[in-house]
Amino acid sequence: MNAPAKDASAPFVAPGLEDAPLNQWWVAASREEVGRAPLSRQILGRSIVLYRTEAGEVAALPDRCPHRLMPLSQGWLIGDRLRCAYHGFEFGPDGRCAHIPSQGVVPGTMRIRPYPVVEHGLWVWLWPGDPELADPALLPPDYARPGYDSFVHFQASVKCHFLKLQENLLDSTHPTFLHEGMFDDGELANSPQKVEADERFIRLTRETQPQLPNEMTAQSFSLPRDQRAVRAVICEGHAPSRNVVITRFTFPDRPDAPPHELISELPVTPANGKLCYQWWASIASYPLRDTDGMTTIFRQAMNQDIVALELIEDRIAEGDPAAIEISVRADEAALRWRRMVRGMAQAGSAATAGPALRASEA
Amino acid sequence: MNAPAKDASAPFVAPGLEDAPLNQWWVAASREEVGRAPLSRQILGRSIVLYRTEAGEVAALPDRCPHRLMPLSQGWLIGDRLRCAYHGFEFGPDGRCAHIPSQGVVPGTMRIRPYPVVEHGLWVWLWPGDPELADPALLPPDYARPGYDSFVHFQASVKCHFLKLQENLLDSTHPTFLHEGMFDDGELANSPQKVEADERFIRLTRETQPQLPNEMTAQSFSLPRDQRAVRAVICEGHAPSRNVVITRFTFPDRPDAPPHELISELPVTPANGKLCYQWWASIASYPLRDTDGMTTIFRQAMNQDIVALELIEDRIAEGDPAAIEISVRADEAALRWRRMVRGMAQAGSAATAGPALRASEA
Amino acid sequence: MNAPAKDASAPFVAPGLEDAPLNQWWVAASREEVGRAPLSRQILGRSIVLYRTEAGEVAALPDRCPHRLMPLSQGWLIGDRLRCAYHGFEFGPDGRCAHIPSQGVVPGTMRIRPYPVVEHGLWVWLWPGDPELADPALLPPDYARPGYDSFVHFQASVKCHFLKLQENLLDSTHPTFLHEGMFDDGELANSPQKVEADERFIRLTRETQPQLPNEMTAQSFSLPRDQRAVRAVICEGHAPSRNVVITRFTFPDRPDAPPHELISELPVTPANGKLCYQWWASIASYPLRDTDGMTTIFRQAMNQDIVALELIEDRIAEGDPAAIEISVRADEAALRWRRMVRGMAQAGSAATAGPALRASEA
Ligand code: FES
Ligand code: FES
Ligand code: FES
Repeated sequence: MNAPAKDASAPFVAPGLEDAPLNQWWVAASREEVGRAPLSRQILGRSIVLYRTEAGEVAALPDRCPHRLMPLSQGWLIGDRLRCAYHGFEFGPDGRCAHIPSQGVVPGTMRIRPYPVVEHGLWVWLWPGDPELADPALLPPDYARPGYDSFVHFQASVKCHFLKLQENLLDSTHPTFLHEGMFDDGELANSPQKVEADERFIRLTRETQPQLPNEMTAQSFSLPRDQRAVRAVICEGHAPSRNVVITRFTFPDRPDAPPHELISELPVTPANGKLCYQWWASIASYPLRDTDGMTTIFRQAMNQDIVALELIEDRIAEGDPAAIEISVRADEAALRWRRMVRGMAQAGSAATAGPALRASEA
Repeated sequence: MNAPAKDASAPFVAPGLEDAPLNQWWVAASREEVGRAPLSRQILGRSIVLYRTEAGEVAALPDRCPHRLMPLSQGWLIGDRLRCAYHGFEFGPDGRCAHIPSQGVVPGTMRIRPYPVVEHGLWVWLWPGDPELADPALLPPDYARPGYDSFVHFQASVKCHFLKLQENLLDSTHPTFLHEGMFDDGELANSPQKVEADERFIRLTRETQPQLPNEMTAQSFSLPRDQRAVRAVICEGHAPSRNVVITRFTFPDRPDAPPHELISELPVTPANGKLCYQWWASIASYPLRDTDGMTTIFRQAMNQDIVALELIEDRIAEGDPAAIEISVRADEAALRWRRMVRGMAQAGSAATAGPALRASEA
Repeated sequence: MNAPAKDASAPFVAPGLEDAPLNQWWVAASREEVGRAPLSRQILGRSIVLYRTEAGEVAALPDRCPHRLMPLSQGWLIGDRLRCAYHGFEFGPDGRCAHIPSQGVVPGTMRIRPYPVVEHGLWVWLWPGDPELADPALLPPDYARPGYDSFVHFQASVKCHFLKLQENLLDSTHPTFLHEGMFDDGELANSPQKVEADERFIRLTRETQPQLPNEMTAQSFSLPRDQRAVRAVICEGHAPSRNVVITRFTFPDRPDAPPHELISELPVTPANGKLCYQWWASIASYPLRDTDGMTTIFRQAMNQDIVALELIEDRIAEGDPAAIEISVRADEAALRWRRMVRGMAQAGSAATAGPALRASEA
């Protein structure tokens, strides 16, 4: 009836998440999402409740009362303590039980292990593995840029393996087809690619030939229609949890003009082996005309990806052994990412941070 | 395509019901629920059809025609025989086939095993195990009281393990929190408890200090507001299938005044390892003012329990080995009940009835 | 995350389909269903996309792009090529990739294996097994009759094992009960049966005594009410995928009058172990008065079968080992069919076509 009596200190690997490294920082929420109402998330198969203390600090506890396993997120805050809705036990941000209504003494064993959490950039990062190994130096760099406009922010759940979704974000040929008519007019899939990587980071760059932007592109990116522009699409990934897509227009005929740059942070975290979370947050270097319209397009694009990825997951689940992926050159970045994240999971512990190459600096 | 050809006489244990003793009486329905319309229930993983003969006796057969496994509950009664909806075979209450339309002779092998059933108190009790061992002496006592009003009667299905639901009914500290504002104003969880048990029965008693009832309590239990009252909450369990909760007010300043007593019978029976049935039937020693209001409150309370227990079941299903229950003193009765029912299941046969201590007699 | 790396050339047997022979022709669609819009079907656990080329030929490919496993049925046709919706790769009816937008060269390995398909009679027949063994001589005979009216045509999905549905179509006693009041007034289940079979074909015949038709029968089959008629119900099966039910009225008092004959082709093909497709197409030798009414009745009858078969499947899934079928004489044809199809599956390869006895010729 309960979980089998395994060694509770052994790291728990949820079914299907053999490739998800536990001893890494994963995005658990955007900073905005966490407040005084307890927020329940499942991170790498672990149910976790997030809330802010009265001082504004983020706390993360197992979303499961140690008494009878009631989700603590069903309870409510009394000061900094979360009160369980079932029998009223109260737990502090340190996971210790501070009050049991039916008895005076609280045994020291009545406690749960808090998860290390850090607010960094736009996100709340959580370390699902061994708390002793949690090292803020392993957090990836922030993409904040002075003077850039933030204009879109949303979250979705996708019923697929997290690597499939991340690989989609390191694949700059699919927009031409899956998102046909939304972002480019077909030249992107044809342009040459460049892949750079170290052991925790990857960057895929495609750059088109200089050309006058068509109307859709000019409007989306606030470009002058009479200037030739080079479009670079740069897909970056900081393993294991954050992907970023940068679209940058430069003007070869006016080298002094500042580039028009759109940076979208797209973290991905598995809830479990069959579901993952995707966040989307964009900033732009140029004044935005129609932020609602851009948000609508981005949501539509994400929905197209979700439909495709969930259908692919269905095909995989059918179990036909003839269902084998055949890769092409355009998949290089995705395949390297897959190996990188799997390698981290196999290493089974926090990799020491690799050298130089980090967040995109034009 | 069919069930594997095991020894059909070996007792069938449904997945997750290792702790449910087969050779015991279980509530299958309230007496009111069984009539001339065939009623389908699943009891300990066995699909069973219940109906009344023309003489009013309860019959219980596998809800599965031995010909092509059609649920017999889809058929209809012809006198005392149940006719299968698929090919029209007819079966008597003894499980023997009495008519096959496509041939004159009915082979003696065309039969199903009826289940022993007894009407007792408000309930129809069924013996899912070996019929040879079915012993009416093992039925628990009836709670009928002369002159008491019956005022509520309903049934619900709960997607959790049956022991979790029964343990909830042997836990008198959760109403203060899970049912906050409905039954007490917080003093119950703090009052001392007493646990009595023999090998088939358990009783948990909590008694508050004498006090003037507040308005809600006075109204719910028809108490005078100017008399101090002692509230006793008595949770009783007759293993394996029936729980009872008794709320009794006595008046220390007027020892001759009759107590106000509310007795709720709350049988629980597993349909399978993931679903159980709960019934609720209450009687009261005092004239009831607002029976509809009380029924509404009881349904709301049951719904709160259902939400909590189903959420807990979800947490258990996640498989995180860190999901371990830590018990406190208030859990003594629930833990003893769990061991008692498991012990019965392991004994694997009808326990001989234990001695004295039985239904609550004030 | 992907299917385990088995030998992709080993035949894939979907769970629950051990009894479905792979090296046989199965109905995948009616001819009408396949056009220029890609049609997705699952045949013996294999997801398959069907479409017509510009020349009108039927193509059948795995419904799964070899690149990243996107269902090809989500794409669209460019001439005779199916373009994948994800990254725009294009595949011809021969399964070869003809275009990859992100690179000039298409590697020869980027291909999928087309399935053999044949249009024959009303149906598109597909060979899910080894293409080398696909032999059009194994197709069963067509039931087209000159001058007969076609009047009904529909398709349904049934959540049961395919053999259960096929056996239902070789059982002429259930209409009296499951379809009570629709087709006969009870005499069919009582009339004598005759069973003929060879190794790929079976025929079950029941014939009533001559009698004046009642009003319902006269109206349904355009019979004169003043002529005695003999009703023959002939259930035929061509293993493994097509069942046929023929109702034929002959007039013993006017031997020269042509029989009134209704022929219904009822192919069944498993999508997977828990779901099968059923088609229905009828032709009649006599002028039809109320084709809409007949279609309605046939759909109602099919829905009754679906309800029954799905309930039976539920009972089987419960796993109670006491759920054992006991057969009677009326089950002879169904049992022989079951053995015939299982035998084909075990033989594991195309049986050579058996001798004479084939489609019903009055
Ligand atoms: S389950 Fe949380 S206090 Fe009991
Ligand atoms: S299944 Fe009940 S009579 Fe055939
Ligand atoms: S999945 Fe079909 S082209 Fe990539």
